[in-house]
Amino acid sequence: MAGVDSSSSSDLHQARQRIHTAFEPQLFHKASGRLAQLLADHFEQVQHSQARVLNWEDPETNVQRALEELASSPETDPLPDQNALAERFASVVQAMLQRGQNLHDPRYLGHQVPASVPLAGLFDAVGSVTNQVMAAYEMGPWATSVEHALVRELGQRIGWAPGTFSGLVTHGGSLANLTALLTARNVALPDAWEQGIQAPDHRAVIVVHDDAHYSVTRAAGVLGLGTQAVIRTSIDEHRRLDPIELDRLLTRLAEEGRRVIAVSACACATPTGAFDPLPQVAEVCRRHQVWLHVDAAHGGAVCLSSRHRHLVEGLALADSVVIDAHKMLFVPALCAFVFYKNREHRFQAFRQDAPYLFDPSAPGLAEYDSGLRTFECTKRAAVFGLWGVWRTFGPSLFADLVDVTFDLAVQLHAKLQTADDFEPLHRPECNIVAFRHIPAQLREAPPEQLGAFQLELRRRTIQSGDFYLVPWKLDGVGALRVTLINPLTNKEHLDQLLDVLRRHGQEMLR
Amino acid sequence: MAGVDSSSSSDLHQARQRIHTAFEPQLFHKASGRLAQLLADHFEQVQHSQARVLNWEDPETNVQRALEELASSPETDPLPDQNALAERFASVVQAMLQRGQNLHDPRYLGHQVPASVPLAGLFDAVGSVTNQVMAAYEMGPWATSVEHALVRELGQRIGWAPGTFSGLVTHGGSLANLTALLTARNVALPDAWEQGIQAPDHRAVIVVHDDAHYSVTRAAGVLGLGTQAVIRTSIDEHRRLDPIELDRLLTRLAEEGRRVIAVSACACATPTGAFDPLPQVAEVCRRHQVWLHVDAAHGGAVCLSSRHRHLVEGLALADSVVIDAHKMLFVPALCAFVFYKNREHRFQAFRQDAPYLFDPSAPGLAEYDSGLRTFECTKRAAVFGLWGVWRTFGPSLFADLVDVTFDLAVQLHAKLQTADDFEPLHRPECNIVAFRHIPAQLREAPPEQLGAFQLELRRRTIQSGDFYLVPWKLDGVGALRVTLINPLTNKEHLDQLLDVLRRHGQEMLR
Repeated sequence: MAGVDSSSSSDLHQARQRIHTAFEPQLFHKASGRLAQLLADHFEQVQHSQARVLNWEDPETNVQRALEELASSPETDPLPDQNALAERFASVVQAMLQRGQNLHDPRYLGHQVPASVPLAGLFDAVGSVTNQVMAAYEMGPWATSVEHALVRELGQRIGWAPGTFSGLVTHGGSLANLTALLTARNVALPDAWEQGIQAPDHRAVIVVHDDAHYSVTRAAGVLGLGTQAVIRTSIDEHRRLDPIELDRLLTRLAEEGRRVIAVSACACATPTGAFDPLPQVAEVCRRHQVWLHVDAAHGGAVCLSSRHRHLVEGLALADSVVIDAHKMLFVPALCAFVFYKNREHRFQAFRQDAPYLFDPSAPGLAEYDSGLRTFECTKRAAVFGLWGVWRTFGPSLFADLVDVTFDLAVQLHAKLQTADDFEPLHRPECNIVAFRHIPAQLREAPPEQLGAFQLELRRRTIQSGDFYLVPWKLDGVGALRVTLINPLTNKEHLDQLLDVLRRHGQEMLR
Repeated sequence: MAGVDSSSSSDLHQARQRIHTAFEPQLFHKASGRLAQLLADHFEQVQHSQARVLNWEDPETNVQRALEELASSPETDPLPDQNALAERFASVVQAMLQRGQNLHDPRYLGHQVPASVPLAGLFDAVGSVTNQVMAAYEMGPWATSVEHALVRELGQRIGWAPGTFSGLVTHGGSLANLTALLTARNVALPDAWEQGIQAPDHRAVIVVHDDAHYSVTRAAGVLGLGTQAVIRTSIDEHRRLDPIELDRLLTRLAEEGRRVIAVSACACATPTGAFDPLPQVAEVCRRHQVWLHVDAAHGGAVCLSSRHRHLVEGLALADSVVIDAHKMLFVPALCAFVFYKNREHRFQAFRQDAPYLFDPSAPGLAEYDSGLRTFECTKRAAVFGLWGVWRTFGPSLFADLVDVTFDLAVQLHAKLQTADDFEPLHRPECNIVAFRHIPAQLREAPPEQLGAFQLELRRRTIQSGDFYLVPWKLDGVGALRVTLINPLTNKEHLDQLLDVLRRHGQEMLR
């Protein structure tokens, strides 16, 4: 090994000293004490809307700021004392808190990313600080075990009998959809894994509707099927998959000799939160012997709410299901579950071994080596947040969170209906609401102008830090969209939202 | 929305009360104070080897324990007071700490997963607790900005000029390799994304050698090329890619009319940490006009060490490079970087838009919307750990960590060479060492028996909690393998390792 000689041993000695300083439990204790206070103060401030929701800054300005800070990072030699290091630690944390998106501000009504249960982040931190991972069971025995337990628990809440199904956790809904569709591909086209997509397999298709998440079309691009292999089926006036049209489409595809890898349904779809009629969709898929995948990333959480679980009636009929705990189970990103109704499918996504990793002297452990089932080799202990919240508060907290945020959507919808200058674009089925603000001046405006106004109004609003909401387009015309995914939001905040939009709108029209 | 009626408003009121309790900043402060103490105590204990390295438990026993604890989770109604909740929190954390793998014990010499810098986990926790994510820039403006800054900084340390290259962060090295190879596929086969893998594209190949990580072969299976499309090139006696053989192979493939999507080289390979000769490999690839991908997941960190950066000479000649910060930059999982030498390739992996997510009213922001470049839609603020350590301790701490752990490997190798009853299987190039224990009784044993002994010895050792190391096979014969990836490990621990293996070995042979 070049460069290692005796003249360098004093350098190495100093390097070891610096490392020991950095790894000191006392330094850790000081820093974590500071962190506890900084984060508690942050929650106190943010929950009471005492700062901007989004700390907007032009991205390149922000990147330049980060580059300057990186360039001014201290030298390690000599390292200062623990108090000075804890001080540096605190100042870096403060910048993180002051320059981010404040999801715990009740005026955050944004993407399907929740104001997570604060303690969930702390449970997650146990995994980060001790670096608990999986791939092989032995690297994270407890992380693996609680993942298995939660898979079994949630699978039963979907409606499956113990021992019949299987599941895994991965880093996000897009990867979860990709994992499930890879499994469906490998089941439908058994030679594809080894031989690739060859004729006639290249004519295989995936069926979705227009409101499906983009990750499904991406999956077709990734998996070698091509995005053109995604065939669209119709939605009805409530933006739900139309089972009769699906039946016709599957009949036509069969006549054309095109293999259907999967029908991918939504529970619920992203744009307006519409739940596809799963019992009817499943019945059509059963008749055509087609794999039914249900992207329940957002809506799957209703399995834990007696009030709303009817929305996913029929979910247990799906061959694969995705549920993101980092959406409506209110844990931090990322913690996405993939379920297979038939346990036999659990090793179908990937069909390899890695001899240096998975111990051939203990083959029984393969059942618990997560790396055999997931895109990740090394994987975070991604379920610690969910596990901890479940154990501390009990599962009914998840029902509370679903019930309260869904109710907020009903309240917002009622306000939008009552107001002269707002137009709800659908009746909410969950906690997603899409709408437009139509000030008197724009009542006769052409659609393009009205749509552009919504998008511009949103940008102005979020950059002001007054509220955070997201853009949408209905039939190509811009609209506003919120997800009521901060359970601290209340009726008064909803009134404020309308007022803030009116105010920014009038300033724009002036 | 069914089920929402006035009779349920008192239920909702109680649900809101429970949520407010769970989200209380004071409860958070109490819990995080407890966590600070528990983790500091844990480090104190573990760094001094006062517990088992691995808390081994049979997996199904562990899963059943988790299921029982899940079933005994409390009901939320009524929620106890803050002190009782903080107590529950602490007991769940304690179980996590007592049932895991103790990477911070100096006797942890395991997979390429480090005893991470403790403060890195705290910086990561800022992201988890406040749920900072990306996809769209505006969801995580600071998380995105520090990711961009670190991409620019590390890319320059690879050797590229500012503004010429691009990069991203994803959840792990396997996904990073897949992302880079997807890009290479889409560049080599421009119609594949939309049209799928069709003749003659299905004859395209990826070239690797036998010691490449399994994720490369998996990528071929995932991307519709098929695992049979992975063509093996030779390694030399040091387990390094042989450039002359590569040249011959690429010539033959060209004659056969087979398109080469990428040559995937290692810096370093997983089994023994061998670094492929990048300048020569790059020259061969240049001549054949083939994309060179370098999996530098483990070894890329030497870019920050003046002592060892010669090992990745030529890295800047690669078209794509993967570096895992959660390996030799000693931050917790997962934080994997993908780099493209040519900035123009940054949007080649995925070619879609998601109109509800990415704001058409501000198209300039697409450059900062990470979701357009990564498998993840919502993505964690995965660089906060690296950012914080860099800012607190300065970049030379990373050099220290590389230098100290690489030096440990040299020391272990010397001990193995000196000992009569140990056989090193290679000269270490980094901090990975593979070897066998050969007690006197087994000196004449056939290879199968000797190999089985190694694997059984390892299992016995790790289950005892005395040390943690991993299995390997050389030419089909079992071996032992360590990664010196805890910088608190010292010479005395290495002596202990040999003694512990001798002791367990003798117990087995008795």
